[in-house]
Amino acid sequence: MAVASFRNPVPTVDVIIELIHRPHRPIVLIERAHPPLGWALPGGFVDYGESVETAARREALEETQLVVTLVEQLGVYSDPARDPRQHTLSVVFLATANRDPVAADDAKTIAIVHAWDMPQPLCFDHDRMLQDYWQYRFYGRRPGCQPGA
Amino acid sequence: MAVASFRNPVPTVDVIIELIHRPHRPIVLIERAHPPLGWALPGGFVDYGESVETAARREALEETQLVVTLVEQLGVYSDPARDPRQHTLSVVFLATANRDPVAADDAKTIAIVHAWDMPQPLCFDHDRMLQDYWQYRFYGRRPGCQPGA
Repeated sequence: MAVASFRNPVPTVDVIIELIHRPHRPIVLIERAHPPLGWALPGGFVDYGESVETAARREALEETQLVVTLVEQLGVYSDPARDPRQHTLSVVFLATANRDPVAADDAKTIAIVHAWDMPQPLCFDHDRMLQDYWQYRFYGRRPGCQPGA
Repeated sequence: MAVASFRNPVPTVDVIIELIHRPHRPIVLIERAHPPLGWALPGGFVDYGESVETAARREALEETQLVVTLVEQLGVYSDPARDPRQHTLSVVFLATANRDPVAADDAKTIAIVHAWDMPQPLCFDHDRMLQDYWQYRFYGRRPGCQPGA
């Protein structure tokens, strides 16, 4: 393992925030203010010198005004085609909050949603992340390693 | 989430390879051929355009000559101080193989080890990764989110 001297995927974080003060623990989605437009999990780039945990809490706060408690990592999503702009990878966190979010920063609007009323379209690979999330939440099955990935 | 225009941590992978053809499923460590010297999990940088799964299989093959089967992700380790050379983050995979490894590429020598005979010193934060691994393997406890991280 030599020091990186060429291009690497850019690390990001996404946060699935469960609102535990509301019935059925709905989650928070943002409507993106910038292209690609559509709905997405709160998240963004990891800064140099910042852990992924710090980045996740920072991005959640910036976009939803929520101070979240991180619960665990769901997994890393790194398909080279997941973001049309450049190759990024995302570390997805599960988190909780106990008050209502407010749209801010890169979020144009906010939705508080359940598994049965998800808005469309979802940007990037967030639909796959959320499918993995519901599988884990409802059935305890963690995402596996994709054979082709 | 705008396109990254500044510096970000560099993504890497590390692989905990269980040798399932040997009693007690020992794991594989490499002795690094380049500084920082010491023992480490097989691993390395994720290339642009490559998923973390592909990177994990490639690095395992390059350094141990083993074709591994990825089982799951243990977690992402991203403490800014984890590598003295630059800020990297590592996605740690659990994997299996069913033959003996051979040192190659960045690996000077190979060790096949159990929890009770780990060599020292371990580079980077691999001691912490392995502590988390043994906790998970022996007690089913996954790594949590560090409050201070």
